[in-house]
Amino acid sequence: MTTTSRKADAPTGDGRDPSRDGLRNRVEAHVLTHYEPLWRAVQRNRWLHRRTNAVLTDLAILKAPPRPNPLSTMAPYTSWPSLTDRSYVGRHLPPDTAPHPGRPAPERAAELFRREGAGETCHRSTALLPAFAQWFTDGFLRGHGRGGDPRRTDSPHTIDLVQLYGADEEVTSCLREFDGGRLKSRVVNGGEFPPLLCENGQIKAQFDALKPVRWEDVPEPLRDTVFATGGDRAHAHIGPMLVNVLFLREHNRIAGLLTRAHPTWDDERVFQTTRNILVVMTIRLVLEEYINHLTPYHFRFILDPTRTVRASWHRENWSTIEFSLVYRWHSLIPSSYRIDGEDVPLLHTLANGRLLEDRGMGPLFDDLSRQPAGRMGLFNTDPLLLPTETRSLEVSRELQVASYNDYREHFGFPRVTDLRQVSGDPVVREALYDLYTDVDELDLYVGIFAEDRRHGSLFGNLLGRIIGIDSFSEALTNPLLSPRLFTPATFSPEGMEILRRTRSLSDVVHRNLPEDDGRYLVSLGTKHARDAGDVRGGRAV
Amino acid sequence: MTTTSRKADAPTGDGRDPSRDGLRNRVEAHVLTHYEPLWRAVQRNRWLHRRTNAVLTDLAILKAPPRPNPLSTMAPYTSWPSLTDRSYVGRHLPPDTAPHPGRPAPERAAELFRREGAGETCHRSTALLPAFAQWFTDGFLRGHGRGGDPRRTDSPHTIDLVQLYGADEEVTSCLREFDGGRLKSRVVNGGEFPPLLCENGQIKAQFDALKPVRWEDVPEPLRDTVFATGGDRAHAHIGPMLVNVLFLREHNRIAGLLTRAHPTWDDERVFQTTRNILVVMTIRLVLEEYINHLTPYHFRFILDPTRTVRASWHRENWSTIEFSLVYRWHSLIPSSYRIDGEDVPLLHTLANGRLLEDRGMGPLFDDLSRQPAGRMGLFNTDPLLLPTETRSLEVSRELQVASYNDYREHFGFPRVTDLRQVSGDPVVREALYDLYTDVDELDLYVGIFAEDRRHGSLFGNLLGRIIGIDSFSEALTNPLLSPRLFTPATFSPEGMEILRRTRSLSDVVHRNLPEDDGRYLVSLGTKHARDAGDVRGGRAV
Repeated sequence: MTTTSRKADAPTGDGRDPSRDGLRNRVEAHVLTHYEPLWRAVQRNRWLHRRTNAVLTDLAILKAPPRPNPLSTMAPYTSWPSLTDRSYVGRHLPPDTAPHPGRPAPERAAELFRREGAGETCHRSTALLPAFAQWFTDGFLRGHGRGGDPRRTDSPHTIDLVQLYGADEEVTSCLREFDGGRLKSRVVNGGEFPPLLCENGQIKAQFDALKPVRWEDVPEPLRDTVFATGGDRAHAHIGPMLVNVLFLREHNRIAGLLTRAHPTWDDERVFQTTRNILVVMTIRLVLEEYINHLTPYHFRFILDPTRTVRASWHRENWSTIEFSLVYRWHSLIPSSYRIDGEDVPLLHTLANGRLLEDRGMGPLFDDLSRQPAGRMGLFNTDPLLLPTETRSLEVSRELQVASYNDYREHFGFPRVTDLRQVSGDPVVREALYDLYTDVDELDLYVGIFAEDRRHGSLFGNLLGRIIGIDSFSEALTNPLLSPRLFTPATFSPEGMEILRRTRSLSDVVHRNLPEDDGRYLVSLGTKHARDAGDVRGGRAV
Repeated sequence: MTTTSRKADAPTGDGRDPSRDGLRNRVEAHVLTHYEPLWRAVQRNRWLHRRTNAVLTDLAILKAPPRPNPLSTMAPYTSWPSLTDRSYVGRHLPPDTAPHPGRPAPERAAELFRREGAGETCHRSTALLPAFAQWFTDGFLRGHGRGGDPRRTDSPHTIDLVQLYGADEEVTSCLREFDGGRLKSRVVNGGEFPPLLCENGQIKAQFDALKPVRWEDVPEPLRDTVFATGGDRAHAHIGPMLVNVLFLREHNRIAGLLTRAHPTWDDERVFQTTRNILVVMTIRLVLEEYINHLTPYHFRFILDPTRTVRASWHRENWSTIEFSLVYRWHSLIPSSYRIDGEDVPLLHTLANGRLLEDRGMGPLFDDLSRQPAGRMGLFNTDPLLLPTETRSLEVSRELQVASYNDYREHFGFPRVTDLRQVSGDPVVREALYDLYTDVDELDLYVGIFAEDRRHGSLFGNLLGRIIGIDSFSEALTNPLLSPRLFTPATFSPEGMEILRRTRSLSDVVHRNLPEDDGRYLVSLGTKHARDAGDVRGGRAV
């Protein structure tokens, strides 16, 4: 990262000292974020694009030693149960058992995250980004703090859409129609929605297996608006709710299509084949739309199942506590949503299914795509979510998660010796100096959000690296992507064609709007929003 | 395989037509079973030995497409449950749904296995081979036929010594002392044995969790002699019982050693670390003693954890129905055991713990090492085990296991067009002609045991190939062998040293004989028995 490039893009980072970024890291970052014509040329050649895709994927993932990690959160030593009992959360580094008197209490550190007023906005991403991110990660970063034990999880440790289908057979069963492979649904104003979870404020008997998190916090009047769905956090706020409805519609759309194409298939086969398709569709959207939006590179990653055959990192995924911590992007969530021209406070979007039904799916995607997300970083979490920040820090301490500097070292960055190497923002540095006696004491959870964002990105070096390692190595080890499975036998010929044609969330939205034939903006990036400001009202993007 | 080499070693195979062995297969087999001085030279150089080991391991495993297999026995199509629910047995090939009117009924086909009289003996292996094989495979080829459903299994799908520790936490708990990391045991005549399962013919309350298979078939008088252990088939006969006692002793020996070396460790840590050591010790014995005994190659395979990093076959194991079928080596089991100079009929060795206590562990290992195994193949299964052969054929039909020829094709051999290409033995061919209308109808289970054994081996080409693929790819994907885990942190420095020093079953036996200081023959091969006929009574082998 050169001084020039930093200056060009880092409004808060003018004074950061890049001397501890590491030469190799700086060269790699520079090459990947410059020379756009060269990268465009690479991508024009199909073979070269695929090869480069493979090399850069390896480069991203092999910044960490390959799995299996020696420990989970079960015990501070390796045992057969710790290697096999996946109801414990994984971890990259062993517990740091040293005393840390130089660290602030969790609730004091959490104050570093507090947003004042409306907060700062992100220049790069829309409010659809945290909506999709939250929906997507609720599928595998699950259950920390369930029953008070942050070591346990019910994560499938891979992408299998439990947020839509539920984490076990019982949940899945209560959501299925058992006819034509469909999920239960309701039609409201011509559009399809999940069934309602409650009647007169009580969870319906048929949905007894569903256990929405923090149900006791959902106000009585809202309970009758909450959707019945597999994700126990899908009601958390309007963002994940919206994406979940989209995937419900896509499931039933494809199930109908397969039923027509394969009249001999029973309900079970249609249901399971549809799920296969939706899982891989999600992975494609994650890689080709979401990750490409997040990375500051000129190169665009592609989903290439043939490349996953030979790779030393290709080991079964096991979601880690570190991945969970670095993915808590509360600062991206705005304090109010602009819906149909009105500002709706965040609080009113929680567990409020009515909002979605009233506005309609297309218009709501459009709303979220036109509003910027919050700026990621310290001092930008809505006070409503501040208790969650405190809890994150408590969990980090309970599990003895190692320091920011230890993780820098583990993931291939030199240790920092001065806060100036973390942030160029004097306000951030001042606040950290007040709370931490030494840079070596810095909590991982604070450090990653204190980092200046890197050139063209939403976040800093270490956060970007951990996300890269754990996202790629999770998505690409999905069994459905292995060469013997990525075939029409697994997805049906119709499914292969659907997968081939799906390149963006916008594609999925626009084929699932029976209630109107409008064209809506569906975009993770604010750039598109500006470029395509006139798409509302029937014209194609 | 050249004509000369076949003649030299294949007493029943003189007339076999090798034209459908495949050129590449023949060249590989020839090179690996000839040029002994060259192979010896390769193994003298440490680097070359390791490289060759890696290349030959890849060669063996990559005769099949890498996992995941598209299907399990759950359904004839791929679904998320079928890819993740490991309580179903895996399978290499999809069900063969074609009708097969040209096949005999299972009980008729099973007659092909019937041994007349004492049966034929193996010129190469001792009775210790089936003992070890049965004990070892009972750890992962488990539960076909449980509750009548051959699709289900409680296999851990890897080597984790459930046959010693039990398949779940409840079973493990009832076997532990919860002191010093030890397993419960008893001392009889100065030697350590597992506790007795029963008192007055009833399973003791403390062992309620243990469910020995076919318990109703164990005669009343023998019940009080049966050992309490994790393996639900460990009582099946004297062979697996003996090996299980050995590993119990080794567990408690190492637990004692770790307790002394690490006084701060609690019972749990000692227990789990000991298990880690025993799992890898078993893998080493399997690779370096057992597999090297089985392969006809001049090259000796070694356990080399560093090599398991980069390999396209390195995917989590899932035990297959094919592996289970080809590993049913009933013909190796003699119809009577020569114990302390007396012939004990097979029937009297079933569920008879007393036999082991009375004879003593060292002498019994010696007995088994001096008696040849049965010849592997058709017409050589003791009538006592014939119902098991029938059941194997029934399971193979129920699960629609594809034909012998389909598996030849899948595993890299040309399809045979004539039975002469399977066996040179006119008696075998005649019997098959009588039962099968066409060579394409041949059951896998019959075909593999009808094959002439290959040069210097116990069995034929296809059986050897399937065993090679599934054994290597199971053993080497064990998480404890991954580079970040194969360290003193996982096994303790003492454990690493024990693993380094353990190269044979004989090593393990001789350090676990507190009741006498004799030296005994412990050998899978009859050659050693001849060479070392005089080791009994105190002298080193």
